[in-house]
Amino acid sequence: MKNSIIIGLVAVGMASISLVSFAQDKEGGKEMMKEALKRNDAGELLLPDANDYRTWVYVGTPVTPNDMNNGKAAFPEFHNVYMDPVSFAHYKETGEFRDGTTLLKELVSVGSKAAVSGNGYFMGDFIGLEAAVKSSKHHADEPGNWAYYSWTNEGKQPLKDTAKAFPTAACNACHDASAAEDYVFTQYYPILRAIMAEKK
Amino acid sequence: MKNSIIIGLVAVGMASISLVSFAQDKEGGKEMMKEALKRNDAGELLLPDANDYRTWVYVGTPVTPNDMNNGKAAFPEFHNVYMDPVSFAHYKETGEFRDGTTLLKELVSVGSKAAVSGNGYFMGDFIGLEAAVKSSKHHADEPGNWAYYSWTNEGKQPLKDTAKAFPTAACNACHDASAAEDYVFTQYYPILRAIMAEKK
Repeated sequence: MKNSIIIGLVAVGMASISLVSFAQDKEGGKEMMKEALKRNDAGELLLPDANDYRTWVYVGTPVTPNDMNNGKAAFPEFHNVYMDPVSFAHYKETGEFRDGTTLLKELVSVGSKAAVSGNGYFMGDFIGLEAAVKSSKHHADEPGNWAYYSWTNEGKQPLKDTAKAFPTAACNACHDASAAEDYVFTQYYPILRAIMAEKK
Repeated sequence: MKNSIIIGLVAVGMASISLVSFAQDKEGGKEMMKEALKRNDAGELLLPDANDYRTWVYVGTPVTPNDMNNGKAAFPEFHNVYMDPVSFAHYKETGEFRDGTTLLKELVSVGSKAAVSGNGYFMGDFIGLEAAVKSSKHHADEPGNWAYYSWTNEGKQPLKDTAKAFPTAACNACHDASAAEDYVFTQYYPILRAIMAEKK
């Protein structure tokens, strides 16, 4: 029984990581919408701990490799997309991206292109990290209150320590024109589509 | 403050799902190695709830599409691979797959092959679910105590209610010959490779 208690505490510990960060964001007695990531005084997002966000809820992975784009892919990697667990629970309940929703996109190089299972694309190395954050507090003037961030450091480790929001036009033009739902490309994330299908 | 308490309970609730199933597997006073999934009396694995396993820890996605395999891919889909959270915590601590480790492989069809981000492979629909389970109790005679299961139902929903272990030769020949670590293809799962790199 001792082992199962220890194992239990480990699992509760994993959930607690999120609880702590969500519990701290108060301001002047007024409860603010909670963000999963921390910011510095300049409003830049601090690089999150991979041990934390890699336990967030996975929502999907597109891959747009160079060899399918004449060697000039705009995004030549796998993009593993995660949603913070509190916002995922809210999405599952309501079908909406709550104020504070954080989507992280971990960039993974194309590694092997052949394995015992066949020819294809297999994940190589971690080469970057980006975020889409919906925040009425920090992005009051952005479309849908979404802004986009990157800690990517020319494809190398370590990643940058902080990330500031890109100008609106840099990312939102495509998200506005082509994303299925609230600036998010849910059409490529079957986990989110499955939830929406249940809601309708 | 009220909202953050509710949000907290939701997150704890998500972790509790796993705790409950791990806490129940005792037998005759002797503590057995815990499995994440339930079995029927015949030892077949019951189909797990997608709401549960889609919050497990994501470890990687290979894709081996038909059009890269002369139209005859053995595995023509995306394979989203998840590890149960308790075994993941153990792996992170020790670098080993604990007795009871459950890896789920959710099969997702290739959907769109072009998007605003470029040509590539984008996830379509959920078409199957498979498992690799390491269990000294249930697979005493299998190599490494691993056995493989499938609830896939000819690519259609609903999936099968139960899954029995495949014969050893059906899956383990490749896992034995080509997997990097304890019959698991960790070479294609950067999240697990990152942990191993820290251990060395």
